[in-house]
Amino acid sequence: MKRRDIQKLLKEAEAEEGDLIEIRKGNEIYKGILMPHHSFSSEDVIIIKLENGYNIGIKIDDECEIHLIKKRKEKEKRKKKISFNKKKPIVSLIGTGGTIASYVDYLTGAVHPATSAEELALSVPEIFDICNVKAKILFQTFSENITPEHWKAMAKEVAEELNKDAEGVIISHGTDTLAYTSAALSFMLKNLSGAVVLVGSQRSSDRPSSDSFHNLLGAARVAISDIGEVVVVMHSNISPPLCTIHRGTKVRKMHSSRRDAFQTINENPIGFVDKGLKIIGKYRKKTDGMTEADVSIDSNVSLVYHHPALTPDDFMSIVEGKNGVVIAGTGLGHVNEKLIPCIEELTSRGIPVVMTTQCLWGRVNLNVYSTGRKLKKAGVISGGDMLPETALVKLMWALGHDDAIAIMKKNIAGEMTERSVYNAYQKNYIP
Amino acid sequence: MKRRDIQKLLKEAEAEEGDLIEIRKGNEIYKGILMPHHSFSSEDVIIIKLENGYNIGIKIDDECEIHLIKKRKEKEKRKKKISFNKKKPIVSLIGTGGTIASYVDYLTGAVHPATSAEELALSVPEIFDICNVKAKILFQTFSENITPEHWKAMAKEVAEELNKDAEGVIISHGTDTLAYTSAALSFMLKNLSGAVVLVGSQRSSDRPSSDSFHNLLGAARVAISDIGEVVVVMHSNISPPLCTIHRGTKVRKMHSSRRDAFQTINENPIGFVDKGLKIIGKYRKKTDGMTEADVSIDSNVSLVYHHPALTPDDFMSIVEGKNGVVIAGTGLGHVNEKLIPCIEELTSRGIPVVMTTQCLWGRVNLNVYSTGRKLKKAGVISGGDMLPETALVKLMWALGHDDAIAIMKKNIAGEMTERSVYNAYQKNYIP
Repeated sequence: MKRRDIQKLLKEAEAEEGDLIEIRKGNEIYKGILMPHHSFSSEDVIIIKLENGYNIGIKIDDECEIHLIKKRKEKEKRKKKISFNKKKPIVSLIGTGGTIASYVDYLTGAVHPATSAEELALSVPEIFDICNVKAKILFQTFSENITPEHWKAMAKEVAEELNKDAEGVIISHGTDTLAYTSAALSFMLKNLSGAVVLVGSQRSSDRPSSDSFHNLLGAARVAISDIGEVVVVMHSNISPPLCTIHRGTKVRKMHSSRRDAFQTINENPIGFVDKGLKIIGKYRKKTDGMTEADVSIDSNVSLVYHHPALTPDDFMSIVEGKNGVVIAGTGLGHVNEKLIPCIEELTSRGIPVVMTTQCLWGRVNLNVYSTGRKLKKAGVISGGDMLPETALVKLMWALGHDDAIAIMKKNIAGEMTERSVYNAYQKNYIP
Repeated sequence: MKRRDIQKLLKEAEAEEGDLIEIRKGNEIYKGILMPHHSFSSEDVIIIKLENGYNIGIKIDDECEIHLIKKRKEKEKRKKKISFNKKKPIVSLIGTGGTIASYVDYLTGAVHPATSAEELALSVPEIFDICNVKAKILFQTFSENITPEHWKAMAKEVAEELNKDAEGVIISHGTDTLAYTSAALSFMLKNLSGAVVLVGSQRSSDRPSSDSFHNLLGAARVAISDIGEVVVVMHSNISPPLCTIHRGTKVRKMHSSRRDAFQTINENPIGFVDKGLKIIGKYRKKTDGMTEADVSIDSNVSLVYHHPALTPDDFMSIVEGKNGVVIAGTGLGHVNEKLIPCIEELTSRGIPVVMTTQCLWGRVNLNVYSTGRKLKKAGVISGGDMLPETALVKLMWALGHDDAIAIMKKNIAGEMTERSVYNAYQKNYIP
């Protein structure tokens, strides 16, 4: 059934969003609050919020009947006015797009982007028990479209908010490239006077299994903590709900759909958050000073993912004209020996070439096998236990500063650890 | 100390490989069997096998003293003659290089490449309790140097062995690109009349924690089973020792150094092996017919790893002149929307473009978000839950055959599963 036919049916039943309705389909009867149509849902579906709080979508066909049971109360339509609470810290919420930017209105079950503190109050009122919220939409884009230019805008906005009145900052962000952004902000933001918390949602908030509610509340609790780092707060996928606090440079999206898609790689997470924070790792504390946004970067870099069919010609066409190269090599950081002269050509021109491992876990070691030793001799910089993506982002930032090679060799924002944590292999430890 | 000085010291002590010696270093005294120098060790180190069976390396300096305790018995120097056991199946062992190809000689503690069944007998005698072994070195190379041409040679050799007298085949292989080879052989080998077991070692066999011994014995047990697939047998890293049997198209090296680096992604492993096999998944059984090596491939393909700094120009220079492209996209299989016209240009020329996810776990779904729907409209083929590397290898094989696009859409060798296994996320289940 077409969307406009569904709208006609609803109009005939005098049913509006927020009203209690009944849908009869064959022998089944569904009763719940009519929710607004969501752009992620197919056009022939009506979503209702059941009494148990879960949302379901019902495919409407010509046989379906819709009946109005009860109109929504007039007073529930009015927006709740949120007053500033002097005793609570201020958190700045910066919206950039993605699934979490659509909030559930508890009164109606409505899904809509929160564009003001008032709207947010209607959707996640619990957040105001934690802090005062200043909400702002910086831009609205799917995160696959986010580029280094967006990172700069975010970094500047964060610094401005922290240097004004915000105790901490929450950035809502699509999950696809969230970890690239968290790495970028980790390098760009210095002397943080508050936590910068990136948060997303793997399931949109019109789905019963949505993680957006807990992720956002967890993010707020971390935002007012004494952490002075860029972190990612996402669901740990256990019950009762818990979120993991990941270091911005060590986190990676490891599943295309699970709520616990985000995992800290090669170290334990900083900690966890539910009603309170459970810290298990070391972190940088927030400072009293001014936060600086050092956004000078050069994004003319390339990431070479090594594989058995990659030829020297392929390699050269990928790196042609680039100012820096990250290789995701095999094992301890290897490539086919035929590529070594190509790499030597780059390094002799002063172009940094950084080796990481496509294994993701573990670290590069160019001292074990002869291939590694040849690569080291050819001037390759070991990325240690840095993720390939983090190394790529770091290289962009390093190239925006003097002596990129020296920067690549040292730890800037927790992206390289000296000692491996033996148990930090695959699924993160959960307390 | 230089190697030749160490050799001089040993000569003065009249100590040869296999002899029991004593090394005095400061207040420490080390006693054990002198082992041959290994190319992976640094030149100033002597390796001895302690009484407890462990090997240690001792850094030799000018203060060290070396004393001969006992000469190796003459009869131990003779090679053991292995006789053919008619009651046991024949397994063909094909060596291609890598860490496992160096075997420990139990009599001397020596590490050397096994080039014959006799040498193997001296190193892992337990294997002859399982089967008769025909050993052959096909080539000796670090696996990072293995190319599609090597895959062809291996596939032909396997088919020849299985069609002659071998019940199953073991291929010893460096671990760096072992999973690429296992995927390639999975597509190339049809109607398998025996198991094809790829095996490697994460720790060279002169190290006490080496996995080569158990991996090789596990591989032999799987080689004589009724499995008719290409599988990878590697350590599960638990005690007592256990090895995991991974499907060749679903396995990936996930750690640069751990013994349990290999993990089955997006499904449970086929099973496990210690003294016997514990099967937990479905597998194809071996056939009675002739094994076919279908090695027609086109390796002129490219793998595009999407990231926020990747521009349309970058994309075009990576795919220029290629006959097929695999994209490791973000999340459910996305790229920046600016790349969509480039992709459309490729597909309009009949070039297959396959989408996979850089998350590795989970599956591509081009129906959820508008970016996915646009990509689908642009002719992108969904890789489902295929690994990016497996998709790349499959694409090479598909391009060697008629209608590559149709081949990419269907499951050929267990590389695509229809239903996701919820718990097959990160570390494999261990019984």
